Amino acid sequence: MKQYYSYENFKKDTNTLIQKVKPFEPEAIIGIARGGLSLSHCIAEGLEIREVQTIRTELYDKEQKRNAITIFDNCEFCNVSRVLVVDDIADSGETLQEVMEYLRAKYSKMEFVSATLFYKKTSIYEPHFWINEANTWIDFFWESDFN
Amino acid sequence: MKQYYSYENFKKDTNTLIQKVKPFEPEAIIGIARGGLSLSHCIAEGLEIREVQTIRTELYDKEQKRNAITIFDNCEFCNVSRVLVVDDIADSGETLQEVMEYLRAKYSKMEFVSATLFYKKTSIYEPHFWINEANTWIDFFWESDFN
Repeated sequence: MKQYYSYENFKKDTNTLIQKVKPFEPEAIIGIARGGLSLSHCIAEGLEIREVQTIRTELYDKEQKRNAITIFDNCEFCNVSRVLVVDDIADSGETLQEVMEYLRAKYSKMEFVSATLFYKKTSIYEPHFWINEANTWIDFFWESDFN
Repeated sequence: MKQYYSYENFKKDTNTLIQKVKPFEPEAIIGIARGGLSLSHCIAEGLEIREVQTIRTELYDKEQKRNAITIFDNCEFCNVSRVLVVDDIADSGETLQEVMEYLRAKYSKMEFVSATLFYKKTSIYEPHFWINEANTWIDFFWESDFN
């Protein structure tokens, strides 16, 4: 069973998420590609944050689980101490967990918090901010509106 | 005068743009942040391209014009020869012109083409693919739907 997640839903939830993350006062946003790209864009516009960077991950071998995630990070930070890390969903949670551990180890003096639109109770990682619990397969508008 | 550019318009135009760029068979996409982020995401989904990277630019001093653009590029390519560079609009065209020159100089064996939703006749750079001519200020949905 699939649940279509329209732009109208996204608009409403992203505005709620923006209000939730605002007190953290992020100075930069990292979007996890591809799923977090549109969300990072719209949050950045809402919070008037110019600095949006991206991280790309690849899962090499599904049987190997966690250690098989490779992170392609080329982030550069200048005078930034609080960063919001954005993805569409914490599903297995493996990507976000790896990315957050990686960022905190690499930039040990900076603060990172995470935000997603969806969170699955079975995820090994719970984002600091999330909006909906996912109980089925989410069919995001960017996945089905374009072809 | 402002022209609101809704998600529904974006959806229609992006699907047209996807059909236009398809024959080029891009293997990777570079989105120019912030304006090109959602577009690069949706084109990547439509073309089933996993590799989406981003470039960020800063215009330091408006009086200095062209040379004042700084490009923050951390792209890495592996076995990729054709790349689509995506932005929302070729307005003055300075950013796209600089980015295309920069990419072609840096990755001289690769092919780069550009795509935007809007193009202004006064732009110093015309993208390979574009959909609408902009005659007024375009108010993209990501700029006004989130706050």
